[in-house]
Amino acid sequence: MSDSDPIGIGLAGFGTVGSGVWNVLQRNGGLITDRTGGAVRLEVRRIAVRDPGKPREAKAPEALFTTEWKDLIEDPSVDVVVELIGGTDHAFELVAAALEAGKPVITGNKALLAERGVELFTLSKERDTPIHFEAAVAGGIPIIKAVQESFIGNRIHTIVGIINGTSNYILQRMTEAGLDYPAALAEASAKGYAEADPTLDVNGWDAAHKAILLATLAYGFPIDPKNVYVRGIEMIKPLDITFAKELGYVVKLLSVVREHDDGAVEIRTQPSFIRRSHILAHVNDVFNAVAVSGDGIGDSLFYGRGAGQDPTASSVVADLVEAARVLKHTAGHRGFLPYRETGTLVPIADTETASYVRFPVTDRPGVIAEISQVLAEAEIGISGTHSPVDPDHPDADFVEVVFLLHTCRFGKLKRALKKIEALDCVTDRPVVFRIESLT
Amino acid sequence: MSDSDPIGIGLAGFGTVGSGVWNVLQRNGGLITDRTGGAVRLEVRRIAVRDPGKPREAKAPEALFTTEWKDLIEDPSVDVVVELIGGTDHAFELVAAALEAGKPVITGNKALLAERGVELFTLSKERDTPIHFEAAVAGGIPIIKAVQESFIGNRIHTIVGIINGTSNYILQRMTEAGLDYPAALAEASAKGYAEADPTLDVNGWDAAHKAILLATLAYGFPIDPKNVYVRGIEMIKPLDITFAKELGYVVKLLSVVREHDDGAVEIRTQPSFIRRSHILAHVNDVFNAVAVSGDGIGDSLFYGRGAGQDPTASSVVADLVEAARVLKHTAGHRGFLPYRETGTLVPIADTETASYVRFPVTDRPGVIAEISQVLAEAEIGISGTHSPVDPDHPDADFVEVVFLLHTCRFGKLKRALKKIEALDCVTDRPVVFRIESLT
Repeated sequence: MSDSDPIGIGLAGFGTVGSGVWNVLQRNGGLITDRTGGAVRLEVRRIAVRDPGKPREAKAPEALFTTEWKDLIEDPSVDVVVELIGGTDHAFELVAAALEAGKPVITGNKALLAERGVELFTLSKERDTPIHFEAAVAGGIPIIKAVQESFIGNRIHTIVGIINGTSNYILQRMTEAGLDYPAALAEASAKGYAEADPTLDVNGWDAAHKAILLATLAYGFPIDPKNVYVRGIEMIKPLDITFAKELGYVVKLLSVVREHDDGAVEIRTQPSFIRRSHILAHVNDVFNAVAVSGDGIGDSLFYGRGAGQDPTASSVVADLVEAARVLKHTAGHRGFLPYRETGTLVPIADTETASYVRFPVTDRPGVIAEISQVLAEAEIGISGTHSPVDPDHPDADFVEVVFLLHTCRFGKLKRALKKIEALDCVTDRPVVFRIESLT
Repeated sequence: MSDSDPIGIGLAGFGTVGSGVWNVLQRNGGLITDRTGGAVRLEVRRIAVRDPGKPREAKAPEALFTTEWKDLIEDPSVDVVVELIGGTDHAFELVAAALEAGKPVITGNKALLAERGVELFTLSKERDTPIHFEAAVAGGIPIIKAVQESFIGNRIHTIVGIINGTSNYILQRMTEAGLDYPAALAEASAKGYAEADPTLDVNGWDAAHKAILLATLAYGFPIDPKNVYVRGIEMIKPLDITFAKELGYVVKLLSVVREHDDGAVEIRTQPSFIRRSHILAHVNDVFNAVAVSGDGIGDSLFYGRGAGQDPTASSVVADLVEAARVLKHTAGHRGFLPYRETGTLVPIADTETASYVRFPVTDRPGVIAEISQVLAEAEIGISGTHSPVDPDHPDADFVEVVFLLHTCRFGKLKRALKKIEALDCVTDRPVVFRIESLT
């Protein structure tokens, strides 16, 4: 394969994630090529689906579609196979056939890897053909790459994760709105956060499959799901939630992986109490989080969207780039390559936030009026003022006056502050803090 | 280079991080080789230091030491150069010379890359020799790899980070203990959280350098530090902290990188108010966090130790493995390779946590005594009991009794619960939640 050839992709499945992958490649394919110094161009060449007539979320040319997944294996223009059909039977056949054919596989199928990973990873090793599965655990969170590559020099002590968004949402609604389990599940379904059959989400097995994958990465040996302890959230009552709250805890469906001193590995998934002050207690909605602790990194945590079209597609595409780099032997430069000669920076004067400004002033009547007047002339809105009294010096001559200001251009604010600084009553430079509105 | 040859490492600098790298390789070198399917063996072959007589935190054979960094370039047994000498002059010469010689470079020197990255990345491209710098931003957090590889299919919208541990510690102490800035700085110094010269930490430039690197990765063009807005934390008064608190905010030294709709990039570092409910507000002590939002992943966040010997060494070692894989052209298999035939799982009965148990019972005198008796016989400690009254049915016949139990083996607990379940007064299976003690 020459350096300029695109990598041919065969998609098996063109539902939510498959359409997402297609869309990402349409939208950001050029950016990916730029970021890899021109080395990686990705091209979908075949899409296997059961029913080609079904309406899809993405528009791909009809000529790409086939109803035979075997076409992906046999078509020599397909270099990499993306398995998005789900389940453990056909998916197994497909992945095994691709590996046999020396075609790297990308999959997000946690059940497949947790149930039949031993066979597939062995085949992967024999055929020297990798399986990439970033999308299998925690959607858009790159936890697989982190454990496998970034923490490769670490002995992993523990991995603790909230890795099922549906159950996390249900527990949160039980906690916040006082709903009982059936009502919270119904709400999750209505919002599209629970699948038509939510069994694997609420009985803990979806999370357990992911925990098995993480433990396999961290400790390197096959783990039989039959030996793994799993409990779901179905039996939780509002009473448990309330009582947890009263005690300073939050209830989360937690997957815990831990290496004991003797090298044995603990792995379990169950509803757990965690103290409200812990960062994991703040993982809400359908978000996921995974905390990893190791002998080098200490404690670290990854947080993000655990599912959904775009985050999952993003992980599949990252794996595609990885597979492409290997196939093209362009691994020769994996460092950063500047890909734009130049770009534009936003002048700081043109950036906007709300702000807090503190003015050191002489304490005399009219000070706030004078400052406000300058702000009014500059058309900068005031959302609040405050001049805190120092209880030790209630009659001090010099005090601080604080203004909270509406969002405005920083340049405009700076000009107004210059004028205010020149006022007789202002004794020193004002101190500005931006008030960031974070999502 | 044959597949079984080790990769020769030249360390420039053998202070905190250099010693850490040495120790990680001694401790976990075998694990790294296993995890890479035998492909990567790392061997330190030369260590350049200014004063070989200085006492070190790690013990390396004397024969490895040299006082000439040029030896690392000239010694053919050195395949990869690790720059840990700091500063921007000698470090620049060293890195440039290594790249010229076709030796991949690993560095954690954010000042060097932010100030002179344009020259070095250009040279890296010309010589087809990568610079790896995971250790340059946020110590043990793999944010460089995340932005560069995991999010390669994303248009990055924003990166918001708390990426200077020293200033974060100072601000936290001002917030929690009401210290003023000089007192909090003195405390940070006493605890070893501030360097002998903390200037770059508290004036915002250390964070700004890291923000420049992240922006360069995300947007691909060189950024001149002169065009970047930076303010430090030195002028913050207890008054500002108090007022922020009253308003529901927390003050953090925040680095903000954001792409505007027209493609221009905003980049600034300054103390900011963020609302107390935001996850970034919970980043305490010397921890770092980086929130990244992109068109695929949505919102994600990375949290961990931002500095320190082990986390930083862990990142250097991950980069060494990356460099080794490329040098050995063993990129052929970058997927997961099971490296142990088998391992031991801890039986669930042998796992231990504190727990919460709810018993559905008949409401009659003696119930709590009977249950407590079984627990006492099993030598399971009780830290609290509670039988919540349903205000709508204060005289209900069936109620719930909750016990909080001390840490004990799960198997022991299960046996006791079986006995309790058999009591006449217990009407249904008890419900157990583990109380996790998370760090």
